[in-house]
Amino acid sequence: MRVRNKPWAKDKIAEHPEVVIPNPMDVKGHWREVFKNDHPVHLEIGTGKGQFILGMAKQYPMINFIGIEIEASIIVSALEKWLEEPLANVLLLNENAEQITDFFAEHEVDDMYLNFSDPWPKNRHEKRRLTYRSFLKSYEAILKPGGRLNLKTDNQGLFEYSLESFSKYGLQLEHISLDLHASDYKENVKTEYEEKFSQKGQRIYRCEAIFPQ
Amino acid sequence: MRVRNKPWAKDKIAEHPEVVIPNPMDVKGHWREVFKNDHPVHLEIGTGKGQFILGMAKQYPMINFIGIEIEASIIVSALEKWLEEPLANVLLLNENAEQITDFFAEHEVDDMYLNFSDPWPKNRHEKRRLTYRSFLKSYEAILKPGGRLNLKTDNQGLFEYSLESFSKYGLQLEHISLDLHASDYKENVKTEYEEKFSQKGQRIYRCEAIFPQ
Repeated sequence: MRVRNKPWAKDKIAEHPEVVIPNPMDVKGHWREVFKNDHPVHLEIGTGKGQFILGMAKQYPMINFIGIEIEASIIVSALEKWLEEPLANVLLLNENAEQITDFFAEHEVDDMYLNFSDPWPKNRHEKRRLTYRSFLKSYEAILKPGGRLNLKTDNQGLFEYSLESFSKYGLQLEHISLDLHASDYKENVKTEYEEKFSQKGQRIYRCEAIFPQ
Repeated sequence: MRVRNKPWAKDKIAEHPEVVIPNPMDVKGHWREVFKNDHPVHLEIGTGKGQFILGMAKQYPMINFIGIEIEASIIVSALEKWLEEPLANVLLLNENAEQITDFFAEHEVDDMYLNFSDPWPKNRHEKRRLTYRSFLKSYEAILKPGGRLNLKTDNQGLFEYSLESFSKYGLQLEHISLDLHASDYKENVKTEYEEKFSQKGQRIYRCEAIFPQ
């Protein structure tokens, strides 16, 4: 995503610790206490401007959603959306996804989402792709056994790579769609990017990868 | 494939037992003796009119190819092509793929191919799809450990289904292509159907599924 720099973003984020959690390491193992319920916790890596996670939170009020986004200038848009309509089942983290094992305890997360992640098409950047095995390892560390990673992308190369990476890691594939918007999957919540992109008539790919029980 | 009935096909086939093997059960465990060499054996299920298997046999003279096709009126076209240019590394079977474990011994086959198989799109016909688990079980029975199943199809639903079925069976996925003819896979040998179909500009899907070692 192209980032328009917003120098005021970090201050704005700091003013709302009730939704953008300032020190997520301190909450490791205690996220359900912050949400004040025992509902499942779903985690989105790369939350962007927040349309997906806020849409999901409205659609599934009995699920707790946490969104991580490294760019302050981007996540501040999610914060602004949240301020317009505060939802008790959403928290945001302005953090680096490489650190998720510092933020979540073993088995603390039920489901995860990767939406339109950076494809890093060059071979030498393979390790940066969010479906590379070192990332899968960190997801496995925080997911409950049998947890689910939900992937959406418009990038053919990233999707091909991810299916192979999942399969090599021993994950089971379900609900593969090679043309999501032409499929009968009605529950889809679109990201900002997805909305814009699909209007051009290009395909969206989706799948679910299940970690071992 | 639509079949034009050729009442003379069975007679023609019977005249060429040197290439269309009449009683493959009797050869079970002894295919390399028929080929008179120790080269790998590759098996295509649903050989159709033979363009793929004959093209592969020319491209890879050090591999033995066997093609199975249930329809006499179709495989007779493969026979006719073979008669124009007899290749010592090709054999054909006018048989039902459901019986392959009667024709091949354990570990006798190195690689397999499924090209543009019938998608059987209705749920109630799932068991007829050549990537249904009962078929995978029969492929595993005749393939060497680590053997490879190569799949090509233009049918989105069959491809989605097959990836999930492979993953559920514990196969590892490699070389997934969601648009084969736009990819850099240069070794591709086209089937008759593929040639016709790709001229319409539609996508061809491909993957390799590796059986456990």
